[in-house]
Amino acid sequence: MKSGRFITIEGGEGAGKTTLIQELERRIMAAGIAVVTTREPGGIAIAEQIRGVILDSRHTSMDGRTEALLYAAARRQHLVEKVIPALKQGFVVICDRFIDSSLAYQGYARGLGMEAVWEINRFAIGDTMPDLTIWMDIEPEEGLKRIHKDDCRELNRLDLEGLKFHEKVRSGYEQIYRQYPNRIVRIDASAEPDAVARQAIAAVEHGLKGFFAENVKL
Amino acid sequence: MKSGRFITIEGGEGAGKTTLIQELERRIMAAGIAVVTTREPGGIAIAEQIRGVILDSRHTSMDGRTEALLYAAARRQHLVEKVIPALKQGFVVICDRFIDSSLAYQGYARGLGMEAVWEINRFAIGDTMPDLTIWMDIEPEEGLKRIHKDDCRELNRLDLEGLKFHEKVRSGYEQIYRQYPNRIVRIDASAEPDAVARQAIAAVEHGLKGFFAENVKL
Ligand SMILES: Nc1ncnc2c1ncn2[C@@H]1O[C@H](COP(=O)(O)OP(=O)(O)OP(=O)(O)O)[C@@H](O)[C@H]1O
Ligand SMILES: Nc1ncnc2c1ncn2[C@@H]1O[C@H](COP(=O)(O)OP(=O)(O)OP(=O)(O)O)[C@@H](O)[C@H]1O
Ligand SMILES: [Mg+2]
Ligand SMILES: [Mg+2]
Repeated sequence: MKSGRFITIEGGEGAGKTTLIQELERRIMAAGIAVVTTREPGGIAIAEQIRGVILDSRHTSMDGRTEALLYAAARRQHLVEKVIPALKQGFVVICDRFIDSSLAYQGYARGLGMEAVWEINRFAIGDTMPDLTIWMDIEPEEGLKRIHKDDCRELNRLDLEGLKFHEKVRSGYEQIYRQYPNRIVRIDASAEPDAVARQAIAAVEHGLKGFFAENVKL
Repeated sequence: MKSGRFITIEGGEGAGKTTLIQELERRIMAAGIAVVTTREPGGIAIAEQIRGVILDSRHTSMDGRTEALLYAAARRQHLVEKVIPALKQGFVVICDRFIDSSLAYQGYARGLGMEAVWEINRFAIGDTMPDLTIWMDIEPEEGLKRIHKDDCRELNRLDLEGLKFHEKVRSGYEQIYRQYPNRIVRIDASAEPDAVARQAIAAVEHGLKGFFAENVKL
């Protein structure tokens, strides 16, 4: 049985997901709560190999549905080997991107259909849906600007697909958000890091009420 | 638009699928009809790579759902790159195993559920369902015996899972057959090669009526 809590962080490129997760981890740890942060494929050998197939630059002919199935497969294995065991041990697990990324990117922006992508992801996930999802909402142009000023980070295929695609991704997130208002909290990711962290911590404290002891403050 | 016809050959290990396909190909060709035989992953680089992940012997910890998603992904890519283009060009395409193998093996015998496996495979296949499926039915023990007398063929992981598993696979096929009596023709694969071929040819002539010209005899 699961006794931990599962938090996912979502949003477009450069929204500040990785930055926020580090801060959340620090704060939750400081409050004496066991926390694990991860992102797919998360060092899981099988999932890494699957990602390798997706990212292989020779694969310009990869069909969109093939890709979506591969993402779902890697997600499944990462969940089974890493997330579920940590939840069983009572950890707070924070995952950088999860099912909503597939819905927004493959389902909506690439046009495979959110319903269809939902089906294969439910197959992958079973009943391990996130307890709380933080959607870091930001103008795509803003997010991309943040990334491009980082010289050390190589641009990948997705970065290059242009602003229009990223606008669609944002619309996809918007739709998912309207569909799952209880699970998903939208925060203004254009704010400065402190303000972003404050919003996110409030969301975590509220969303995981009952899990933290009364006197815990993040 | 598709103008060819799509035939799949199904059945347990050693039923004689590969043997029959060679004979069908010969007979259809001899009748002057364009035919392509294939099997997943069918030399499609992406699909081969995906199969490589599945068959990797280090992966004893691969989750059943991960595996099913990977099979669906490889199926999709093989379909898009090989089967659909051939169907568009008017070929008869004969494929060694297809969706029913996933339903019988993963869905039924491994217990993932036929409904759930059906969902992810429909995502992979879209509306390219077989026009005709030949189920080569045989006692699993009989089929396994045929294989084990072949010294040149290496035993794979599935062969070794024991008779019980293969009995379940057969029950799975039985159920699918009852569900799709129009698409699937069951033939007695325990008969000798000539009799098997005769049954299969009758099924093809009947199932593809309207596709072959009046005067064509296989
Ligand atoms: N609130 C913020 N305001 C300004 N810059 C920020 C903020 N948060 C993060 N950044 C900077 O923006 C860049 C992208 O941040 P980060 O890597 O956390 O985003 P991300 O959402 O994880 O991006 P990716 O989608 O590429 O993983 C980094 O240079 C980071 O320092
Ligand atoms: N009707 C038959 N009677 C007896 N032996 C047969 C018959 N058909 C095929 N065989 C032999 O049985 C063995 C397995 O046949 P084949 O490889 O065609 O089966 P298959 O269904 O393709 O097996 P696999 O599941 O391993 O792919 C071969 O040695 C083949 O020559
Ligand atoms: Mg990041
Ligand atoms: Mg064979």
